[in-house]
Amino acid sequence: MDLKNLQQQIDFIKEIDKVKYIQRKTKLFNSDRNENDAEHSWHLAMMAIILAEHSNEPIDILKVVKMVLIHDIVEIDAGDTFIYDTQKNHTNTDEERLAAKRIFGLLPQKQAEGLIEIWEEFEAGLTHEAKFARAMDRLEPLLQNTSNNGGTWNEFDIKYSKVYDKKKIIDEGSRTIWDFAEKLIDESVEKGILKK
Amino acid sequence: MDLKNLQQQIDFIKEIDKVKYIQRKTKLFNSDRNENDAEHSWHLAMMAIILAEHSNEPIDILKVVKMVLIHDIVEIDAGDTFIYDTQKNHTNTDEERLAAKRIFGLLPQKQAEGLIEIWEEFEAGLTHEAKFARAMDRLEPLLQNTSNNGGTWNEFDIKYSKVYDKKKIIDEGSRTIWDFAEKLIDESVEKGILKK
Repeated sequence: MDLKNLQQQIDFIKEIDKVKYIQRKTKLFNSDRNENDAEHSWHLAMMAIILAEHSNEPIDILKVVKMVLIHDIVEIDAGDTFIYDTQKNHTNTDEERLAAKRIFGLLPQKQAEGLIEIWEEFEAGLTHEAKFARAMDRLEPLLQNTSNNGGTWNEFDIKYSKVYDKKKIIDEGSRTIWDFAEKLIDESVEKGILKK
Repeated sequence: MDLKNLQQQIDFIKEIDKVKYIQRKTKLFNSDRNENDAEHSWHLAMMAIILAEHSNEPIDILKVVKMVLIHDIVEIDAGDTFIYDTQKNHTNTDEERLAAKRIFGLLPQKQAEGLIEIWEEFEAGLTHEAKFARAMDRLEPLLQNTSNNGGTWNEFDIKYSKVYDKKKIIDEGSRTIWDFAEKLIDESVEKGILKK
């Protein structure tokens, strides 16, 4: 029984409550209420569990779930970056690395190192697990925007080609889900909620 | 590739968005904003991953994570029941069973059956996984209430003996965490934020 470990873990558990205050640009389904990072992460974890059978390759589901549960924790310090932001690259900024070090660093050392490794793996997007986790991260806002009459595409004037480019990465995690997503994007153009 | 499966899964994924609207009685840490069920479920999943080493018995962490991620989905139909409610028993009401059947029933049959089984296992609280998952579910509001100057204990005039009775079950999942929780409860009495 390591009481020092437990106290550090409790401190981390309290710190990550802040994830619930980080507003995303996308709205809940059929809603005009912004989603927060905790809700988003919960939904991705559910999606990963439900959709795992469609992964292109066999995956360690627990690892994928860990990835999506923790992937936005760095935003406590670094803030949410909108995926269509042209000024700021979402991936692996120095700011996010510092945040990972500080926040996961609240945990006992081995556990901190393990979670930072999983977060880095997700960000790099090279393993089967990271590809599938990233597919989930791209799919959820697509489902939200199509349910919200275009959602952030209309709000921020994002055109078809940009959406297509950002979503295409779903294919690396699941060809089946990408086929589905591509149809959704095409239908959105036909309905006029996504402009060419 | 089963497209019918995928469409059913997407329908389920959209339906469970409603979990984000279900308000709990407890508030976020150091806050007066109510927590919702999606945020709560995300936090429990993180806690299960972080605290797994303190389980009394070896556990299948993925199963525990599934339990806590899905445990409140039935509240979409059945509503949140406050743990100190004296009128309504929280556990396994007929209403919740019907809800599980309808909501998980949106999924392909085998998947629906698998998740209902896991939900029932959590509710029954008999396996090592269910005991640990339930320990997480009792620990989070304890941490919240102690950070909120008594929180729901003061708001709804809940006394020490009731809190102690409800929290004691943590011991079945983790003696280490229960020792920690018991100290927190005792300190709360000393500080005057929980009345004897």
